[in-house]
Amino acid sequence: MKAIVLVSGGMDSLVTAAIAASENEEIYFLHLNYGQKTEKKELELFRKIVDYFQPKDTLIADVSYLKQIGGSSLTDENIDVKNYDGSEGIPNSYVPFRNAHLLTIATSWAEVIGADRIYIGAVEEDSSGYPDCRENFYRNFQKAIDSGTKDETKIKIVTPVIHKTKAEIIQIGKKLNVPFELSWSCYKNNEVACGVCDSCVLRINAFKKAGEIDPIPYEIKIDWKN
Amino acid sequence: MKAIVLVSGGMDSLVTAAIAASENEEIYFLHLNYGQKTEKKELELFRKIVDYFQPKDTLIADVSYLKQIGGSSLTDENIDVKNYDGSEGIPNSYVPFRNAHLLTIATSWAEVIGADRIYIGAVEEDSSGYPDCRENFYRNFQKAIDSGTKDETKIKIVTPVIHKTKAEIIQIGKKLNVPFELSWSCYKNNEVACGVCDSCVLRINAFKKAGEIDPIPYEIKIDWKN
Repeated sequence: MKAIVLVSGGMDSLVTAAIAASENEEIYFLHLNYGQKTEKKELELFRKIVDYFQPKDTLIADVSYLKQIGGSSLTDENIDVKNYDGSEGIPNSYVPFRNAHLLTIATSWAEVIGADRIYIGAVEEDSSGYPDCRENFYRNFQKAIDSGTKDETKIKIVTPVIHKTKAEIIQIGKKLNVPFELSWSCYKNNEVACGVCDSCVLRINAFKKAGEIDPIPYEIKIDWKN
Repeated sequence: MKAIVLVSGGMDSLVTAAIAASENEEIYFLHLNYGQKTEKKELELFRKIVDYFQPKDTLIADVSYLKQIGGSSLTDENIDVKNYDGSEGIPNSYVPFRNAHLLTIATSWAEVIGADRIYIGAVEEDSSGYPDCRENFYRNFQKAIDSGTKDETKIKIVTPVIHKTKAEIIQIGKKLNVPFELSWSCYKNNEVACGVCDSCVLRINAFKKAGEIDPIPYEIKIDWKN
C-alpha cells in the first residue's frame, strides 16, 4: 500500500506517521505552511521527521491564504493565544475548516501519484474540541472524495488515533520508538515551549498520565511525577 | 443573505456571479490562482469582473501547490492541452479534485465572515465530465461542511447552473445582462482564444445553440449562423 501522511510537527501526527510507516510499503509526507505563529519550528521539525522516516517523497504546501482569511489566534497577529483555563467551547485557536485543507491537498496529490490511503492524526474526544476533528467529518469527507475524484480512484482516509486519549497515543508511540523530541505542540513559542497554552497543557497532562517524561524543553518547571 | 461566489473568469462562473448578485444583499468574490497556463488572462478578467459587480470584498488565493502536484494539462508544462476530438472519458485538463479546493477555501472564509452561501458555477452534464462537477459531490461536500465547522455555522453550497446546458447558461446570462466579453474559456491562449481546445469548442457550440454571438476574439474564423 501507498500512503500519504499529514505531518504537522505535532505529537499526534508524529505517532500517526509511525503507524503509517508500519502499515504501508511506501509513505509520502505532506506538510502545510499556513503562516501560523510557530511555523518556523514546525518546518524545522518536519525536515527532521523526514530524515528519520525517509518517506519516498514530500510536499510542503503553502496555504497562506488561511492567514489572509484569519479568524484564529494561530494565524492572526491581532488575536492572542490564550492560556489554558479549562473552559468549555471551541478555543480561539480553531483555524476554520483547517483539516479539510489538509485532506483536499492530500487527495489531489494521492490521485496523481496513485496513493491508496491518507493518514491524519486527528483526535476527537481528548482534544481541543475542534469540529474538524470529529469522526463524522471524516466519514462525510470520505464520501466527498469518492464522488469528487475519478471512478477508478480509490483513496481511503485513515484516522488511527481518532478515539484515543493523548496518553494512549504516547503509549502507542513509545511502542513504535517514536522520537518525541522531534514533535512540537506549543502554540506560542518556537524554541522553548510555554507550558501554559491549551496545547502545551494537553500535552503535559498526557505525558504524566502515560507515566512518561516529555523530552522537549519547557519555560516552566514541570513535576513529571504528579 | 451574504454569499461568496467562486469567480474563475470563465463563462459559467460569470453567470453564477450575476445570479448570486440578484439573490443576495452582500456578495464576496473568491478567485484561485493555481499556476494554470491562462492565469494571467483569468486574473485580468477577475479584476474587471470585480469592477463590474462591485462585491463587498475579494480574496485571491494562491494555490500553486496544485502546480507542484501536477497531473493536468492545465498546470503541467509537460502535458499538452489537447484539441477537442469528441472522445469520451475525462480529459487530461482535469485538475485532480480542484473544485474541493475552491469549496474548502470558500468555507473557511465564509465561517470567518459569517457568509450563508457559497455559489459555484459547476455544470454536470453539458461539460467536460470532470468528477468534481457532479451534483453528488456537492451533496457530499455539503455534509462535510456541516460536520466539519462549528455547530452554529450554517453554510449552504449553491450550484445554480449544475443541470443547465451551456446554451441555457448563456440565455440566463443574457437576461441578467452579463458582460460575456469579461469571460475567458480557452485553456491554451491568453489573448486570442484558440477555438479548438475542449473548452473553446464547448463555448462556441453553446453560443451557436443559444443563437448568440460570442464577443471574445478567436484565432479561427467562426460562422455563428451554423
